[in-house]
Amino acid sequence: MSFDVLQEKIIALKNPTVAGLDPKPEYVPAHIRRASYNEFGENLVGAVDAIFQFNKGLIDALCDIVPAVKPQSAYYERLGWRGMKMLEATIRYAHEKGMYVIADIKRGDIGSTAEAYADGWLGETRVEDTLCRGFGADCVTLNGYMGADSVNPFLKVAAEKDKCVFILAKTSNPGSGELQNVSAGDNDTVYGLMADLIEKWGAGTQGKYGYTRAGAVAGATYPEELQQLRARMPHTFLLVPGYGAQGGTAEDVRYAFQDKGRGAIVNSSRGIICAWQKTGKNGEDYQQAARDAAIAMRDDICRYITIG
Amino acid sequence: MSFDVLQEKIIALKNPTVAGLDPKPEYVPAHIRRASYNEFGENLVGAVDAIFQFNKGLIDALCDIVPAVKPQSAYYERLGWRGMKMLEATIRYAHEKGMYVIADIKRGDIGSTAEAYADGWLGETRVEDTLCRGFGADCVTLNGYMGADSVNPFLKVAAEKDKCVFILAKTSNPGSGELQNVSAGDNDTVYGLMADLIEKWGAGTQGKYGYTRAGAVAGATYPEELQQLRARMPHTFLLVPGYGAQGGTAEDVRYAFQDKGRGAIVNSSRGIICAWQKTGKNGEDYQQAARDAAIAMRDDICRYITIG
Repeated sequence: MSFDVLQEKIIALKNPTVAGLDPKPEYVPAHIRRASYNEFGENLVGAVDAIFQFNKGLIDALCDIVPAVKPQSAYYERLGWRGMKMLEATIRYAHEKGMYVIADIKRGDIGSTAEAYADGWLGETRVEDTLCRGFGADCVTLNGYMGADSVNPFLKVAAEKDKCVFILAKTSNPGSGELQNVSAGDNDTVYGLMADLIEKWGAGTQGKYGYTRAGAVAGATYPEELQQLRARMPHTFLLVPGYGAQGGTAEDVRYAFQDKGRGAIVNSSRGIICAWQKTGKNGEDYQQAARDAAIAMRDDICRYITIG
Repeated sequence: MSFDVLQEKIIALKNPTVAGLDPKPEYVPAHIRRASYNEFGENLVGAVDAIFQFNKGLIDALCDIVPAVKPQSAYYERLGWRGMKMLEATIRYAHEKGMYVIADIKRGDIGSTAEAYADGWLGETRVEDTLCRGFGADCVTLNGYMGADSVNPFLKVAAEKDKCVFILAKTSNPGSGELQNVSAGDNDTVYGLMADLIEKWGAGTQGKYGYTRAGAVAGATYPEELQQLRARMPHTFLLVPGYGAQGGTAEDVRYAFQDKGRGAIVNSSRGIICAWQKTGKNGEDYQQAARDAAIAMRDDICRYITIG
């Protein structure tokens, strides 16, 4: 039920982190790119193949120590429909290797449009009497600016398929406060009101660990707000971006967790997938570098929490 | 510059409307579906073909009277990567027929992720020394919850490629007020503050008609708010959803326009693409029905404004 699947993977690996698969072409080591371009040309076909080889190598290197991956849709959409085909294949490959997949799509639309997104990303698409599989993620990120109308269709499919969502509350970027920190309601903020909405939208869908199907995104780069949100959203599983490259530390992200290190997962993208850029080996060691970085991140965060 | 291209198409056709291409499978007349299923099977391949035939037929029927189409990405993503391939083809086909294309994607993400979306949807993707074309839309819709960080990368590509964006201010759905109408700032609302941000983000990019590259979405279903937003955002081109099936009337949407019927475009999706469902001819007449509905909508709205 709800986030139980993810929580149990985290407990099993004693690792509350997710590796963001945000592959810009320049993040792919030169030897992989060269091989793909030689086979397919210096074009979208070649780039898509290079990134897929890179993703598979990363998943192979991480799957027994990291519970989840979070592909960011933008880096696949940038490559056109071929990129989307490769995203489907990446999600399938991660599943084969036992990983939980959070598709970072930040969609937000209403009514039958939200249903279409939910079918495509979490559910199935009906073609006459046939049910067809779409992207097949376990969880997606959403933007709740349009209100419950944009979230409920996802929660409906999530209930049918035992899946979940994360809705943006307080994001990790420098300009997130521009709207989110504006004073709103009764001595409150826009992100605070969004937090209450997320708790309300998820109400009644708690699983055995006490979390609803409606998780929230709360950035590591604002530890004070993160701490407030953790207290304010006791039934909400948190996705915490902003650790590492963006400046969030293990000391900051500890506020995201509840008892026994539960209720949150911390993302790192560049810190893991670009770790090879810091070893001086031209990326020949990208798998080992990613694995080492993931272990270092896990150990760093687990200095402050004990998962059980 | 900026929205000049769209404004000029509107003036040329004396029609300030856009046809939403939101093709649920059941919106496609049975004879088209049957032909595609016979050729490709009752599966995603067949469904994608049926919807592409339908889209092309609609574009053929509308291109000399309606200036723009607005495909809603959700209905294509629902069909997986094949749907995205067909969306690319639909956009290309609409361009061949001279139509302006607004990709309704409501994306919202930050930094290099926003750059990736912007490259994919409005710009080009660099693969080593080759620039590759992505979805190739003229304009996209965005969600500004994450602040300027999520909008500026799009505005940068838009400036390079002479393209534009529409950012959600007040949406047309029943629950839009849940967050958007909450009191915020100094005796204001969340959507009001968003309106100010949109004017600010776009500042300095006015074209010859006075509109910046950063347009706004303002729903026809809340005419009072629409009127306020029009006054508050004098340099902002408005995309107005909610006419027709959602309940907005021509009397409501007239508030979106400035002098000479400028500065706004009104969307109808189901009202046009499903018009055949009301003629009792099983969809054999879907092109004529769509054309008649588009003309009726144009004439309805032009009772209140004079375009020049």
